[in-house]
Amino acid sequence: MHSIDFYRTAFISYLEENTQAREPRNLYEPIAYILGLGGKRLRPVLTLMATEIFDANHKQALNAALAIEVFHNFSLIHDDIMDAAPLRRGKTTVHEKWDVNTGILSGDAMLITAYQLFENYEPKKFRNLAQLFSTTALQVCEGQQYDIDFENRDDVILPEYLKMIEYKTAVLVAAALKMGGIIAGASIQDQNKIYDFGLHLGIAFQLQDDYLDAFGDPKTFGKQVGGDIIENKKTVLYLNVLKKGTTIQRKELLDMYSIRPKDPSAKIETIKGIFLESGAAQNTLTAIAEYTEKAFDVLEELHIANDKKEVLRSFGAQLMRREV
Amino acid sequence: MHSIDFYRTAFISYLEENTQAREPRNLYEPIAYILGLGGKRLRPVLTLMATEIFDANHKQALNAALAIEVFHNFSLIHDDIMDAAPLRRGKTTVHEKWDVNTGILSGDAMLITAYQLFENYEPKKFRNLAQLFSTTALQVCEGQQYDIDFENRDDVILPEYLKMIEYKTAVLVAAALKMGGIIAGASIQDQNKIYDFGLHLGIAFQLQDDYLDAFGDPKTFGKQVGGDIIENKKTVLYLNVLKKGTTIQRKELLDMYSIRPKDPSAKIETIKGIFLESGAAQNTLTAIAEYTEKAFDVLEELHIANDKKEVLRSFGAQLMRREV
Repeated sequence: MHSIDFYRTAFISYLEENTQAREPRNLYEPIAYILGLGGKRLRPVLTLMATEIFDANHKQALNAALAIEVFHNFSLIHDDIMDAAPLRRGKTTVHEKWDVNTGILSGDAMLITAYQLFENYEPKKFRNLAQLFSTTALQVCEGQQYDIDFENRDDVILPEYLKMIEYKTAVLVAAALKMGGIIAGASIQDQNKIYDFGLHLGIAFQLQDDYLDAFGDPKTFGKQVGGDIIENKKTVLYLNVLKKGTTIQRKELLDMYSIRPKDPSAKIETIKGIFLESGAAQNTLTAIAEYTEKAFDVLEELHIANDKKEVLRSFGAQLMRREV
Repeated sequence: MHSIDFYRTAFISYLEENTQAREPRNLYEPIAYILGLGGKRLRPVLTLMATEIFDANHKQALNAALAIEVFHNFSLIHDDIMDAAPLRRGKTTVHEKWDVNTGILSGDAMLITAYQLFENYEPKKFRNLAQLFSTTALQVCEGQQYDIDFENRDDVILPEYLKMIEYKTAVLVAAALKMGGIIAGASIQDQNKIYDFGLHLGIAFQLQDDYLDAFGDPKTFGKQVGGDIIENKKTVLYLNVLKKGTTIQRKELLDMYSIRPKDPSAKIETIKGIFLESGAAQNTLTAIAEYTEKAFDVLEELHIANDKKEVLRSFGAQLMRREV
């Protein structure tokens, strides 16, 4: 086994070798651009790591890892159009730098390119990888649709929200890991276990993201603290208040979520107060801990050596401390 | 072998059975909508037909045929967004009936769904079908990009235009036929021959579309005659004048292509005159005849019974007479 940095470096080299802008340039340049914007490359690193966890060489997994990263960036391009986002990783989004049509078409080409990368595997593995990829990709689309739907709904409940973040975020992390299992020829049982590890960890991570958006340290949290509150976003904290808060807390939250003040600082403080007093903050921390624990519990059931379990446990812990 | 209408009916039944709107409805309803708009279903019919040409049952090909039709309609949704088109088959386009974001996301889901339909085949066929599908789908994206690029270029030449229509239109017709060959287990040689038949026929059809847009009978041509001229579209007729016309004809054409008069009838007549006098119309008819002949020549080389060649020849002839 190698370090996370080793896998990341290996992946980035492979990515750079395989993203020359071809003709027609207006189709392929935006693809090279978004793939070159950086990011932590967590998903492809997980694929390489999982492959070695199951005793195969990470090099066998480079194409699958690239497919995962290409798909992830495809979804970023199309999501950014839907959100009318001007920036991605601090740089101009594709639809802003070029235009919406370019974003649509280059994104489409990326989705197809991701499938093509699996052609490097023999028929049975190709089929298993492509099948897992399709299921996952469709769930990501469904998750995005639920996310959009929830913006216009006032009756979203917590289980629905959990399903949304599972589909929109966690399944891709889970699939990235399972692909390593497929490539290394792990048993179906182990493939499913490592998938579940990724799924629980992905949900824990996303819930923590909601928590940190309100209570994170502005110095280390990547995004603007309070951003979700400013945008009236129905996060796990918000849904917890509606479920567990008093009538007064619920009413105050809904009132606050109907306004968009120029200076949002008072609104942010009031809402954070409600999150704390209602128990929503504590409930969320508990849920994060539970999902993290579930992930670690599944690890124990994997048929791999203890030092390899330790690699995944350590990765999970670092991820939840936001250190990778 | 059955009739075209038989295959069409069989396909439509299968399509209807397999396009129930699932949850989330806002993702799947637009998919059921566009797939229900009708159309001639030529591409899926070709897949069913080709399967029986190579002595297998068309029922084996229903999933591949559906994948082809789902992909085709995915490309229509995304193209209609890019063209800001209000109507498709006389009905409101998806992005007009819902919104652009819905069109993007439902389209993405369709592209993934198309791949999933190949999962009904055993690993080797799955791989061959998915591989052909990816190559083709990427060419369709590239063709669309070239089409967009050509709008802003003044130096497009005929070979580039031919490549564009080959990618944007003909490769999907060719792939639809080849899939039948893959499913029926035809030899690679025969698979490639029937692909070439579809490719040549597809190019001939598209060139004829350009020709009929200027010279077709308003009563039978589906679209508005003169539409390309009104839109200053660089068709094969236009590019022929630039290549073969006199200096005066070229100048007059370029002048005419720089205006958008409220009443376009005089412009249409003038340009049709240039198309005729310059020989562009005749050259285009010759090119159509040549590509059609190439298609029919390839047929002769197929290792199938004569009556089956006749089925394809008759289909090709009907298609070029716009009778299917």
